[in-house]
Amino acid sequence: MNFKKLGKILGKIMILEGILMLAPLAVSLIYKEGITNFIAFLVPIIALVAVGFLLQIPKPNRETLYQKEGFALVALVWVIMALFGAIPFVINGDIPNYVDACFEITSGFTTTGASIITDITLISRSSLFWRSFSHWIGGMGILVFVLIFIPESNDGSSMHLLRAESPGPQVGKIVSKMKVTTRILYLIYLGLTILEIIFLMFDKPIKGYENDQFFFSLLAAFGCAGTGGFGFIPGSMELFNPFSQYVMACFLILFGCNFSLYYLILIGKAKEVLRSEEFRTYFIIVAVAVITVFISLITNTQAVPQNYTTEEAFRHSFFQVASIITTTGFSTSDFGAWPALATTVLVLTMFIGSMAGSTAGGLKISRIVMAGKGTYINVRKLVNPRYVPKAKFEGKTLEEKTINDVFSFITLYFFLMLIALFLLSLDPINGQAVTVVSDAGTYTVEHGFFSNFSAALACISNIGPGFEAIGPYASYAGYNLFSKIILTLTMLLGRLEILPVLILFNPKTWKKI
Amino acid sequence: MNFKKLGKILGKIMILEGILMLAPLAVSLIYKEGITNFIAFLVPIIALVAVGFLLQIPKPNRETLYQKEGFALVALVWVIMALFGAIPFVINGDIPNYVDACFEITSGFTTTGASIITDITLISRSSLFWRSFSHWIGGMGILVFVLIFIPESNDGSSMHLLRAESPGPQVGKIVSKMKVTTRILYLIYLGLTILEIIFLMFDKPIKGYENDQFFFSLLAAFGCAGTGGFGFIPGSMELFNPFSQYVMACFLILFGCNFSLYYLILIGKAKEVLRSEEFRTYFIIVAVAVITVFISLITNTQAVPQNYTTEEAFRHSFFQVASIITTTGFSTSDFGAWPALATTVLVLTMFIGSMAGSTAGGLKISRIVMAGKGTYINVRKLVNPRYVPKAKFEGKTLEEKTINDVFSFITLYFFLMLIALFLLSLDPINGQAVTVVSDAGTYTVEHGFFSNFSAALACISNIGPGFEAIGPYASYAGYNLFSKIILTLTMLLGRLEILPVLILFNPKTWKKI
Repeated sequence: MNFKKLGKILGKIMILEGILMLAPLAVSLIYKEGITNFIAFLVPIIALVAVGFLLQIPKPNRETLYQKEGFALVALVWVIMALFGAIPFVINGDIPNYVDACFEITSGFTTTGASIITDITLISRSSLFWRSFSHWIGGMGILVFVLIFIPESNDGSSMHLLRAESPGPQVGKIVSKMKVTTRILYLIYLGLTILEIIFLMFDKPIKGYENDQFFFSLLAAFGCAGTGGFGFIPGSMELFNPFSQYVMACFLILFGCNFSLYYLILIGKAKEVLRSEEFRTYFIIVAVAVITVFISLITNTQAVPQNYTTEEAFRHSFFQVASIITTTGFSTSDFGAWPALATTVLVLTMFIGSMAGSTAGGLKISRIVMAGKGTYINVRKLVNPRYVPKAKFEGKTLEEKTINDVFSFITLYFFLMLIALFLLSLDPINGQAVTVVSDAGTYTVEHGFFSNFSAALACISNIGPGFEAIGPYASYAGYNLFSKIILTLTMLLGRLEILPVLILFNPKTWKKI
Repeated sequence: MNFKKLGKILGKIMILEGILMLAPLAVSLIYKEGITNFIAFLVPIIALVAVGFLLQIPKPNRETLYQKEGFALVALVWVIMALFGAIPFVINGDIPNYVDACFEITSGFTTTGASIITDITLISRSSLFWRSFSHWIGGMGILVFVLIFIPESNDGSSMHLLRAESPGPQVGKIVSKMKVTTRILYLIYLGLTILEIIFLMFDKPIKGYENDQFFFSLLAAFGCAGTGGFGFIPGSMELFNPFSQYVMACFLILFGCNFSLYYLILIGKAKEVLRSEEFRTYFIIVAVAVITVFISLITNTQAVPQNYTTEEAFRHSFFQVASIITTTGFSTSDFGAWPALATTVLVLTMFIGSMAGSTAGGLKISRIVMAGKGTYINVRKLVNPRYVPKAKFEGKTLEEKTINDVFSFITLYFFLMLIALFLLSLDPINGQAVTVVSDAGTYTVEHGFFSNFSAALACISNIGPGFEAIGPYASYAGYNLFSKIILTLTMLLGRLEILPVLILFNPKTWKKI
């Protein structure tokens, strides 16, 4: 392990986190939240910058990073970011317990959006900002961001980092000039976010929150861009006006697209976008899901307690599918009270997720497509053992190794989810009744199998809310500390796509070379 | 496609099914069930034998079978067996609807044990016998049975059949002399079944059923041996005395073992059995599951409505884990009313299943172990790209191809289960209330996500009962015909381990060569 070099990069990231924390610090000043909230951010900023600079001092013997070091670094960075990012919540008292605070900020950085806060109205503005801002930071990947500022090497170090941090089975076509590419991707990300804020500002303000339109538009856009989904007023996005809900749904779907597609549009290759198999599959799945949920809501085989009008049913179907398939987790209505068909479709989209190279979690559409092609190849090989597969994906030959990696990833994904489910079922909360107050009325659900199942799935897929006792109008607050640690780890496994986290637990990783 | 040769083997199997049906025919005579029940079996027997002989007439141009033909044949055999095996239920009126009858007998042959019968007391003895007997027939594989009687060829045809029909990722070490081996395996199967019947006869008779001890012991042993699980009196095995319940639990675990282990014991290599990794893992998983379920039942964090004594809690834990992990589905108490921890452990064992080469379904322990080793290899390769894996399984080098097949199988297993879940959620039964009367009292459950989830899982893993609306004291009767067809197909996919069934749907399979 090249600890000194690792420390150097880690230090840079810590300094960067310190700089990013100046934003919530400013928010606390703007809203005159008092000295405690100011100190809450000042302390970790000082700590981050101080440790960050200290880590720059030792001179590494070797400038390059091996692949394992790249992977280990990525996992370490995310852990350190969370450990420091949690501090403000503890100091300002918004989340007094440090484990809870770590859960919350990990949920932020991993763009999960699962929350342990039971009453959002008690949280300070600076904390609300920091939570939502962490989605925006985590969405594109913090490490890749740093790569823009450090000198590029030709040894593949940065490539290893990008590979480890980017969601999806393979890094896109546009990585030959890493640094330029990364900059462009960040500019697209920033541009789309600003565009969404502008759109949201066009709407009339939310009733009762007339002075907060800009602040809320900012937080909503952070949540959409990072596909995070932390709420900041009661009922997630329920109080937002229909126009804003439509705007957000559309932007969610845009943020679920592979960002290299926007790059293609920018360089005038828009036609290639339409030729992308993943893009087409993504849109077909979204369309089918929206229609199915909509039908489930308007047919009368199962009563929907909310009694939607047709427009409402369509809007909520559209918004909810967009929010869940992009693994965001915002809600405009209590989908936990929806019929089994709608519930099942939402659970399935939780597994699927969006496109690789987007800010979303889940298995990713490309993996689903490749698994399908791989299965077809396997059947063909049985029919004719001499069959030579010539499957293609996105115009490129689909290598056997890629297919095998996809199968092994999906297996691991399901297994880890089931292990998390088992560990959650040990929690004494199981069997307890939880009262939910939502637009579907007041009702009681028992914390049981489906609650835990959806919690494990919502965390590994970085969604946030699940069903039943952890549904959109409930929170993760009821779980005990052990469960919260498990779920925090599950979120990290999901965001970093498993292997970088597993590598930390292999003793061979830490052997000196 | 070598249709004539396929037809010849198919014909032999049909004649065999006709012969096997003489047993329920005899039961109908012994219990003097009248002419309708006699005819109910006589008609399909005549049809099977007649068609079977007709199929012997055409002379095939080629005696050998290609791999794809072997796989397609296996799937076809099982479909034909079900289509004819369902006829008696329709004629004697026990299950008037033919689709229902096909569901029931497929559930029998695939050793699933899912039933659409709502009142078992109305079913004739001959039907009860045929249902349970179908478990025993299906457990070891009908085709392999036929191989004992047809001339052995050296072209690998029979090997293809064995590969397609045997559960588990690889055919054991003892297949060099296929025919001898198969005979020995069947003798072990027969011997263990007889042994269980003898043990069960030692118990005192069940209250109220004093004259039926032999008949019930027979049916119970069929259910255990094939790991099927059809009940034949109300409440599955609830009314059986504790001694019988312990006997059955022990035999279930024995039938969940790879049968080649018994062969090893017979030839005096008992030590090798203990060295088997799959065997050890199987026992560890069973032990951990029993203990966890037991703890879940005796701790008071969640009330168990049945109020078990400690002995009862242990017995039901032991029996239920044995019954579920061997994918049998018998129950001694309403496990649908158990706490979340017990429920979760049972759901997880539903996925896992027992050893390869046993009569059980599920993913199989060996696949879980291999997936674990494969993951370890993948992590090691990230740590050191030049790492050359030297993983072993059961003393043999674990080939990369085997690991990849395991990953692809597990992925497909989960995906097919999720597709079945989606199709079930279209059923109008969703949202309806189902009243369950069991030893846990009378309670109402809503048919929803978890019902469908457990139905899909219970069918692909060939278990039988699931949870909530299709729990151990409920039935599959409420699903509509479409759902029943889907579930029937799911059972077949599970029993034949997916690929042989998928191969039927590939047009290339039917191309003439």
